[in-house]
Amino acid sequence: MEFFKIMPVDDARKRFLESCPRGPLGVEEVALADAFGRILAGDITAPEDLPGFARSTVDGYAVLAADTFGASEGLPAYLRVVDEILMGQDATRALGPGECAVIATGGMLPPNADAAIMVEHTESLAVDEVGVLKPASPGQNVIRRGEDCPAGHLLLAAGRPLRAQELGLLAHAGVVRVPVARQPVCALLTTGDELVDPARVPAPGQIRESNSFTIRALVQEAGGVAHHLGRIPDIAEEIEARLRQAMATADVIMVSGGSSVGTRDLTAELLDKLGRPGILVHGVSLKPGKPTILGVVDGKPVMGLPGHPVSAQVVFGLFARPLLRQLLGLPPWPAYRAAVRARLAKNYASAPGRVDVLRVALTERAGETWAEPVQGKSGLITTLTRADGIVTVPAGTEGLLAGDWVDVELI
Amino acid sequence: MEFFKIMPVDDARKRFLESCPRGPLGVEEVALADAFGRILAGDITAPEDLPGFARSTVDGYAVLAADTFGASEGLPAYLRVVDEILMGQDATRALGPGECAVIATGGMLPPNADAAIMVEHTESLAVDEVGVLKPASPGQNVIRRGEDCPAGHLLLAAGRPLRAQELGLLAHAGVVRVPVARQPVCALLTTGDELVDPARVPAPGQIRESNSFTIRALVQEAGGVAHHLGRIPDIAEEIEARLRQAMATADVIMVSGGSSVGTRDLTAELLDKLGRPGILVHGVSLKPGKPTILGVVDGKPVMGLPGHPVSAQVVFGLFARPLLRQLLGLPPWPAYRAAVRARLAKNYASAPGRVDVLRVALTERAGETWAEPVQGKSGLITTLTRADGIVTVPAGTEGLLAGDWVDVELI
Repeated sequence: MEFFKIMPVDDARKRFLESCPRGPLGVEEVALADAFGRILAGDITAPEDLPGFARSTVDGYAVLAADTFGASEGLPAYLRVVDEILMGQDATRALGPGECAVIATGGMLPPNADAAIMVEHTESLAVDEVGVLKPASPGQNVIRRGEDCPAGHLLLAAGRPLRAQELGLLAHAGVVRVPVARQPVCALLTTGDELVDPARVPAPGQIRESNSFTIRALVQEAGGVAHHLGRIPDIAEEIEARLRQAMATADVIMVSGGSSVGTRDLTAELLDKLGRPGILVHGVSLKPGKPTILGVVDGKPVMGLPGHPVSAQVVFGLFARPLLRQLLGLPPWPAYRAAVRARLAKNYASAPGRVDVLRVALTERAGETWAEPVQGKSGLITTLTRADGIVTVPAGTEGLLAGDWVDVELI
Repeated sequence: MEFFKIMPVDDARKRFLESCPRGPLGVEEVALADAFGRILAGDITAPEDLPGFARSTVDGYAVLAADTFGASEGLPAYLRVVDEILMGQDATRALGPGECAVIATGGMLPPNADAAIMVEHTESLAVDEVGVLKPASPGQNVIRRGEDCPAGHLLLAAGRPLRAQELGLLAHAGVVRVPVARQPVCALLTTGDELVDPARVPAPGQIRESNSFTIRALVQEAGGVAHHLGRIPDIAEEIEARLRQAMATADVIMVSGGSSVGTRDLTAELLDKLGRPGILVHGVSLKPGKPTILGVVDGKPVMGLPGHPVSAQVVFGLFARPLLRQLLGLPPWPAYRAAVRARLAKNYASAPGRVDVLRVALTERAGETWAEPVQGKSGLITTLTRADGIVTVPAGTEGLLAGDWVDVELI
């Protein structure tokens, strides 16, 4: 154990994640309607040609392209309308030379038709005759059978998050049951002699346990499931018993600890005893979030989160969210991240070598978005909800100046 | 009915939303653990002083500030350690002059103590004597009773989305049941003679109905609940009967229609007959998404979404998402929106006066993020899932140049 050797954030995360398993931790099959937000855990191939027949992509006429060569507004190609293709119907009648068929977007092309003409590029001459004002090339306004995805070809690869559009694609291909990554189960222990159930009125000296609510929501948002194993007094035997229970039932163990030094050391010691290699990181160069504990015991990631809710949320974002991505089988964060560009409203000084996470409220002034640092004593909890987002000040930076453009990640 | 008078996107949205009800549509009470992502529908006040007692924000010593005035490293103030305050305990013993008590972060201050000294600013001289190396001002490192929020004061205002941190604050205040906005119920009808159930193998000319899966997920993401009332052939009587059923059970009616002109007109006509004022918008200056239908019938918003899944998703983002925000009682989109800043990889020409929504895939090249337009015939459905995000080209712009910086909204 290298206790209290404060580690840079990037090194700490690298060391932690490299020792953690790579997901998915398992595969389960769910109905497509329940798959939103889950992670695909197997390659999906097209069960048949998509589409299963040549289709028009416009409202107009199915034609033999050769019949329209040379057509112009001055000299239209005159075609006989011999058929109207109804939506959902099998188009079985082949076109003869100089013949065409009325077709709607998505309609099935006659067996030998090889192009479709937009209605806007025609003039109707009689009920059964149409003038084509523009030539069509073969394949124009047509999707060939299997052009979208031939039978047996890869449609979606394992590891992909299932967004609204992936659900649509899978339904289109008839994949109504989907293999998805099992959600990592995070056992959550909150320790502290002062903690009482939120439904109770605390006696003098006590406070309500609230971090489990915040952390459970963060776990859920990151694709995991959190089980709160309850509030535990700072008694080694009790914490240890609960940790052993967590080892037996969960994929990840998170301890939201008291913030005093003694409690932190106790948590680290007890986590370290759970298995090999044990605690890897105890203390990171991060504000807020210095007293972070990271380790792996017998293949299970363990984390000690600071007791202060703001610090807990920051540490969750920097270490637990990437961990859950890895356990779900997702690639590491892509280089890009959605953020709001805003101008910092006040100077901010940061110690070099340390990552600072600055919470900000966003306001609009004169057509620009400004990021106002959220201030207040560290023990205040109402400041928690005043921030719209965070600005990460990297380790190499000594600070930011008022007016600087910053990237605000919404929280 | 002003059919086919193509309307600018902003005008169409304004006209639509101004005629739609303002939410919340109702209030329901849920357990705090189930409130994540819901919208608070009543003001929450602190049931008692928060915190309920004066607390230390550091590990160290509770003191009478006056005893430390003038202390320095050269001339420490010597104090007698007369007590150790345990976490969760009521601190009842007042300090005499020259006395102090060991205290941890969050510990309850003795009745007359008015400051706390960080352990780092002291030197231990004996078991019961400590030297204070820095003077403390009254109130230093202390949170007073009620300083966070006095009893009866506003803690969280109605209309606020409940993020992870709001759940923590509510638990801290003992609010374990929460009034939240009822989720708008969106009835979803998919029309088209060619549509079959996704579990079936389509016959020639038929395709599987897939939009309901995409739209249901988008509704869910936007805070609503979607009920798919099923696939309906393009027969006026059948559509009408289903629309009447939707009117009786839902807050919003969404019809995902066939994309052919005839079907669109039928949908608009039937929606218009449902009630007053009827259809307000039929066609918007938008690509993709021109054949959008928006209206209000007897107080219920109705929408005709294009049949093409890409268009449907674009139209959902521009019209249905703001609608659901309004029905939930949320303010309109804030001026800021999280996006990835990237450079456009190709020129893009847009018709002036029209809003273009360009789908892009994001890639990293030489340390920069580039947005590559996703191309492919409009009827292809596999292109659906290739985009990471969208770039909105406003109506006043004629196009974008390769290398331009664009804001990519992740989808």
